[in-house]
Amino acid sequence: MEKYFENRIIKLKQELEDKNIPGLVILKDVNIYYLTGFYGKDSGSILGFVNGEIYLLVNYIYFEAAKKSVLTKNVKIIKYYIEKYKKLLEILSSYNIKKIAVEGDNISFVDFSALKVMLTKTGKNLISETGIVENLRIVKDEIELANIEKACSISDKVFKQVATPNSLKIKSFSEIGLAFEMERKSMENGSSGKSFNYVIANNIASSLPHYEAENKNIKNGILLMDFGCIYNHYCSDITRTVLIGNFKNSNKIRQIYDIVLQAQSKALEACMEGVSTIEIDEIARKHIGRKGYGENFGHGLGHGVGLEIHESPRVSYVNETILKENMVITIEPGIYIENFGGVRIEDMVIVKKNRCKNLYKSIKLYTVIK
Amino acid sequence: MEKYFENRIIKLKQELEDKNIPGLVILKDVNIYYLTGFYGKDSGSILGFVNGEIYLLVNYIYFEAAKKSVLTKNVKIIKYYIEKYKKLLEILSSYNIKKIAVEGDNISFVDFSALKVMLTKTGKNLISETGIVENLRIVKDEIELANIEKACSISDKVFKQVATPNSLKIKSFSEIGLAFEMERKSMENGSSGKSFNYVIANNIASSLPHYEAENKNIKNGILLMDFGCIYNHYCSDITRTVLIGNFKNSNKIRQIYDIVLQAQSKALEACMEGVSTIEIDEIARKHIGRKGYGENFGHGLGHGVGLEIHESPRVSYVNETILKENMVITIEPGIYIENFGGVRIEDMVIVKKNRCKNLYKSIKLYTVIK
Repeated sequence: MEKYFENRIIKLKQELEDKNIPGLVILKDVNIYYLTGFYGKDSGSILGFVNGEIYLLVNYIYFEAAKKSVLTKNVKIIKYYIEKYKKLLEILSSYNIKKIAVEGDNISFVDFSALKVMLTKTGKNLISETGIVENLRIVKDEIELANIEKACSISDKVFKQVATPNSLKIKSFSEIGLAFEMERKSMENGSSGKSFNYVIANNIASSLPHYEAENKNIKNGILLMDFGCIYNHYCSDITRTVLIGNFKNSNKIRQIYDIVLQAQSKALEACMEGVSTIEIDEIARKHIGRKGYGENFGHGLGHGVGLEIHESPRVSYVNETILKENMVITIEPGIYIENFGGVRIEDMVIVKKNRCKNLYKSIKLYTVIK
Repeated sequence: MEKYFENRIIKLKQELEDKNIPGLVILKDVNIYYLTGFYGKDSGSILGFVNGEIYLLVNYIYFEAAKKSVLTKNVKIIKYYIEKYKKLLEILSSYNIKKIAVEGDNISFVDFSALKVMLTKTGKNLISETGIVENLRIVKDEIELANIEKACSISDKVFKQVATPNSLKIKSFSEIGLAFEMERKSMENGSSGKSFNYVIANNIASSLPHYEAENKNIKNGILLMDFGCIYNHYCSDITRTVLIGNFKNSNKIRQIYDIVLQAQSKALEACMEGVSTIEIDEIARKHIGRKGYGENFGHGLGHGVGLEIHESPRVSYVNETILKENMVITIEPGIYIENFGGVRIEDMVIVKKNRCKNLYKSIKLYTVIK
């Protein structure tokens, strides 16, 4: 394990040297985990790089946990009681550097301003930088890929237990009840929790891309399930849309389903190193548009997944990234018809040289559960 | 319902007038809910007050949800697609005001800077304000109190099902398993989720105030359970420490337990309108100190609870608030002995004129479960 963390540190130090940043203050929990192995969710910890030295400042209640979990060599773990920025200042003041950068998108304006005032008094300038660690995180290393694959395989198991002919009686659940049952099953299979609030959307609700689950009994018709789990801090994300029993307008749904599935297949085929995210989005979007549903696919085609459920790269018509090997993204086209229903099909893939590797085995054929 | 929201708006408008703030931009989801009835968790919505008019900017996917849930009169609901700050700017530019305030602790430095540049170009100055809505939220109104009481009563039911002689077989669970079972039970009783990651800490783990739950079977000894649920967006928070079976050092635990319980009783007795939070903290802290465990009570005595699990007022030796009727706070002293174990007992109370109202009925007597 340690070598992966060391590699990340080496890359970050190179980046800081290239950018001429002698001091960097990192505040985002998952960035701190990525670089040290300490996962202090909402702990308010600070990771500081100064002239090549590494400091991890944690509230005293996380001190023991930090000592046990840090995997990176030569990290000085410092505890603070109340005022973490004062403690940070103490450390920084022993260095003769003029410029300190902080993650400007992960610090509030109020905290930035207070820190800047304190640093200015000691002759140092605080500047804002964004995306330094996030950019390192876009391409996954071996151990990250193994964790992500495991998280996806747990979701596969959950789906199998929910939505196959021999599965649990889906109509005995409410949407919320099913969401909960799926989370429980993912934990039985080794997940440590849900990677986001599941979308369990029956019938008309499936036309709302950001619906969650309500306390309504599941009835015949469309059931859109967007769910995911967490394994060793890495997320999975999958959507399947299945049909339950006999219902009105099943022909129309069938037609929409096939369009979404074809759009996804085309995008998956095109997904490989060297291709632009805009291009992949366009392939799916054009297919849906040609079939007359262009107005009904409002969101981007996908997003990166890793320590965060949504991270770089975005796969959409506005954000361009050229795909590289071992990026992990979702491909999730959908068609949503107001007051009727929607279909979305989502997989997660690892980008490879001449293809992508789909991380899910869950069935995507049009499936009707009795 | 509507009248409660209207009252909050009236108070906010008065506050803005008193502070001479013609424009205020609110970004925190729970603040937006508090003022409108629209709860767009992580939706990135913006609530703007300009010259007495109210705008709610939501991403298009939340537009229908916002229309359905807004309870405050005369809120103009505007949808945006990608660039919400540009949309905000469009609205603000039609007003002849020179000063706009934004919640400086709820906006990142990067977003603040970008918005300031845009506003400056149109001759407006962006300033930072903090705590305006949070200060209104400290004293709860009737409907808030009803929701909070309901959330607490659900937690009472869960505790009863877990830790009484006729309860489930506690030793058949892992810490994580019990956390999950408690969350499930709270949802069966009407909760919409957990208000934070439960602390289910067996034996030595109970000495770590911010331990969560691990995948370890629960064994004889100390079991500290810090949990809570959510009802209509309002949180509950409760801690009980129970003992399981026969174990070494049970005499020492018994002694610590009694000290914590006495400290809590004294603090609860003193808790009423007009008393300072520092004073209440001191009452519990002095009692624990006199018994020789002053070093073992590292955290503050309590905190406000409402739409957030931790909100104003803080009840500690550093933050002074004079208690007012209908504030809701926790009282949660603890004693933690490294490598041995800890005891914490936590209740939530409503501050009243000459007393406080304890929102929990869960037993606090030293309880041994077989």
